[in-house]
Amino acid sequence: MYAARRDRLRERCHAAGSAAAVVTRPANVRYLAGAAPQDAVLLLGRRQDLLVCAGPPDDRASPWRPDDTLALHILAEPAGDPAVAAADLAAAQGADALAVEEHHLTVTRHRALASVAPRLRLADLGGAVEQLRVVKDEEEISCLRIGAEIADQALGELLESILVGRTERHLALELERRLVDHGADGPAFATSVATGPNSGKRAHRPTDRRVEEGDFLSVCLGATYRGYRCEIGRTFVIGTSPADWQIELYDLVFAAQRAGREALAPGVAYRDVDRAARQVLDSAGYGEGLVALTGHGVGLEIEEDPQLAPAAMGKLDACVPVTVEPGVHLPGRGGVRIDDTLVVRPEADGGPELLTITTKELLAL
Amino acid sequence: MYAARRDRLRERCHAAGSAAAVVTRPANVRYLAGAAPQDAVLLLGRRQDLLVCAGPPDDRASPWRPDDTLALHILAEPAGDPAVAAADLAAAQGADALAVEEHHLTVTRHRALASVAPRLRLADLGGAVEQLRVVKDEEEISCLRIGAEIADQALGELLESILVGRTERHLALELERRLVDHGADGPAFATSVATGPNSGKRAHRPTDRRVEEGDFLSVCLGATYRGYRCEIGRTFVIGTSPADWQIELYDLVFAAQRAGREALAPGVAYRDVDRAARQVLDSAGYGEGLVALTGHGVGLEIEEDPQLAPAAMGKLDACVPVTVEPGVHLPGRGGVRIDDTLVVRPEADGGPELLTITTKELLAL
Repeated sequence: MYAARRDRLRERCHAAGSAAAVVTRPANVRYLAGAAPQDAVLLLGRRQDLLVCAGPPDDRASPWRPDDTLALHILAEPAGDPAVAAADLAAAQGADALAVEEHHLTVTRHRALASVAPRLRLADLGGAVEQLRVVKDEEEISCLRIGAEIADQALGELLESILVGRTERHLALELERRLVDHGADGPAFATSVATGPNSGKRAHRPTDRRVEEGDFLSVCLGATYRGYRCEIGRTFVIGTSPADWQIELYDLVFAAQRAGREALAPGVAYRDVDRAARQVLDSAGYGEGLVALTGHGVGLEIEEDPQLAPAAMGKLDACVPVTVEPGVHLPGRGGVRIDDTLVVRPEADGGPELLTITTKELLAL
Repeated sequence: MYAARRDRLRERCHAAGSAAAVVTRPANVRYLAGAAPQDAVLLLGRRQDLLVCAGPPDDRASPWRPDDTLALHILAEPAGDPAVAAADLAAAQGADALAVEEHHLTVTRHRALASVAPRLRLADLGGAVEQLRVVKDEEEISCLRIGAEIADQALGELLESILVGRTERHLALELERRLVDHGADGPAFATSVATGPNSGKRAHRPTDRRVEEGDFLSVCLGATYRGYRCEIGRTFVIGTSPADWQIELYDLVFAAQRAGREALAPGVAYRDVDRAARQVLDSAGYGEGLVALTGHGVGLEIEEDPQLAPAAMGKLDACVPVTVEPGVHLPGRGGVRIDDTLVVRPEADGGPELLTITTKELLAL
């Protein structure tokens, strides 16, 4: 599988005139090699592919499965830069051009690569690996699905516990502990718990504010499972009966989120998914102050291509997992966010597959 | 204070021929501006210093204290790159040369900066801000001291609880919860808990292995307090009486760590501190397989300059906080790490100040 991914990348490199490439971005290395020990880089070589590491990889962190088509190269000097060593090895394999990830390499490292192999012409690999990563195979989707189940479980357990009087920070830490309890590698990103006036803020960092009766409580969390990261966000009301403004705002965000979900289909432009959700909020007068995107791809990173945003170019494919996460935050009052991870599927296969299945009814806790 | 730091940097820039600089590395931005909202960059301008942000800064994440000498500039287009905007603003202020952090900027971003302001000559700021950050003021040291107290408390509480049968992951999560309970912003780095054969590995990632009688248990954790990160590592024995090999190995690592601590003084070469600790382990036959460094600076980042390593160039100054953290790991058996954060002080002031005061006696838990 990893060899097949590398072959697809190799074709692209050849087409662009480079016989070799060095991949440095960790998620890209992991995608192509099956493991990404710290600081490791992947050399897509002219004669052989090498995973170049500063030291022996830690098996526990990301298991290394030996593979005939990929050898491990450990630097003699642990303080060396594996990318520089890889450039040297590429030159030794007779490459004359080497594609590198200019969006990831710093200017300083790029210069070091150029000087170790002065005869090597450095080209830009651009986002070629990120593009390969957009459409997932069923094994990747299955990791996301398990991660989503774990996040659903952690969230479900939290809802059964007593919330009033507990701080945002503690609730976030408890959710992260539960993710690990249920088998996650760890949280997919910093868990966000927002209460009262903080609720509805995207990526709110938990504070010491305590949950109070009458609050909106918005929670966003995700599990990493075998490297794959998913995301779920829900908003609840604390107490027995939500206020009218809370019900209205919730229904509105729910309608926007549903519109976004229902727009997901192969061939639909990214911006049209964004517009479907955004116009619901816009027409209710909440167009100002909305965040720049309605959703994004997920996978080995929590934010990857595509972006579901007004200026995004491109169209959805089948087997692309994305979030749909509109929200409204009213300064001083709070707000609502609803966030799911879904996989784009053709209508013949039942349409978008919802991975995060926790209810989206407005629960009063 | 922040203005004074920026003035020191400005002097360096002027001396190097640049009237303006853009600082992009987040810890450097925070050091010079007092806050580093996500993706914010600092323009050290010809006429005015600006903190350039993609959106309004989140006060809770890092409080923004208004300052006459530094204005906030929020991009009109939230998807824009603040560094590119800063280059544009520098040109508008009449700068002809702009120093940038080539060790942080990617090739792609550097090119975008060059193209937005083609008349601006881009120079390299190098590690100028990192160098300013090496020597800490007493306010910075006081943040580290509080962080160390928090880490000591969290560790002390863990030692009072029952450990046998609990997994590395759970112990690590509990330690992180306790850090936050005691007022940390969060953990300073991923807490490492290593049992039995895993013990003594540097930066071991916690697994599902459970603590057993007779195990070495090594723990490494740290608190972030107001952005400043410290580190403590200790090794314990589980059960009533440590085995002879455990006592011997512990005494050896303890002797190495003490030698490293005792070598800390203003004017001592970094490599000599490393050698002091390393030669104790070397002469006992553990020279092979040691990690590349004996310690490192701490501050706004958990690993910053200086490195206490065989090839490091430079000498310690007073008021430089560093870790001293030698260790030995015997594959299949486990090992010992002992790690303190200390501040280099002249002998007249009592010598190195130990921030992490948990006992280094070999405790049997």
